[in-house]
Amino acid sequence: MGTIHRFVGADGVFDWEGVRERDYESPDAQRVTARWLMGPSEGAPHFAVRYFEVQPEGSTSLDRHGHDHGVVILRGRGQVRLGDDVTEVSFGDAIYVPPYELHQFRCVGYEPLGFLCVVPARRSTVE
Amino acid sequence: MGTIHRFVGADGVFDWEGVRERDYESPDAQRVTARWLMGPSEGAPHFAVRYFEVQPEGSTSLDRHGHDHGVVILRGRGQVRLGDDVTEVSFGDAIYVPPYELHQFRCVGYEPLGFLCVVPARRSTVE
Repeated sequence: MGTIHRFVGADGVFDWEGVRERDYESPDAQRVTARWLMGPSEGAPHFAVRYFEVQPEGSTSLDRHGHDHGVVILRGRGQVRLGDDVTEVSFGDAIYVPPYELHQFRCVGYEPLGFLCVVPARRSTVE
Repeated sequence: MGTIHRFVGADGVFDWEGVRERDYESPDAQRVTARWLMGPSEGAPHFAVRYFEVQPEGSTSLDRHGHDHGVVILRGRGQVRLGDDVTEVSFGDAIYVPPYELHQFRCVGYEPLGFLCVVPARRSTVE
């Protein structure tokens, strides 16, 4: 059977039934949480869909790795770095980060920056 | 380099720069459009992220196939059928449709039902 994680966010909090908040473990990340909406726990063999939230003044780590990302912004305003370019992003913007592209997401403003991030099931962490 | 498709939706229309609307070609689908936010055109080797919109009284085709789906609702209200179960869904709900699960999305209400749908790059259309 399929899985439905119902969105139970309210009053500025984004949350889902059956999904736990995880710390985002990276030495240079600040004020970031991760929620895996679908992946190994749902039996997904090919991809995972995560929701990341970056609090004001926070940012994800500056990353470069062998797997790609498919990102769609759900809330807030941010800056995305792709290589040497920095672009402002907000609701709905769709960002494809190819393998080995240097990238980072930063929250701009007073509301958290929240985004979906798709990854292939077989991730590489090779620099 | 990465790709950013900027969301340019306004006044109840969801659209993105550099993304064209496609018909959703299925004999039993009604009032459905598809936009591929990332996939082959962006050089994505592992997955694709599409945005589907179902107009009021419309539905996607009743499908069962070998590839899985990762769905997140972005707008409107709908009903999702998974096997014999029908569940109401709205903004933020995250639905994982495993391989060979019978599934269909239907718009409920006056606003279009819009959702992201992730698929692996290698899709099967085998029943």
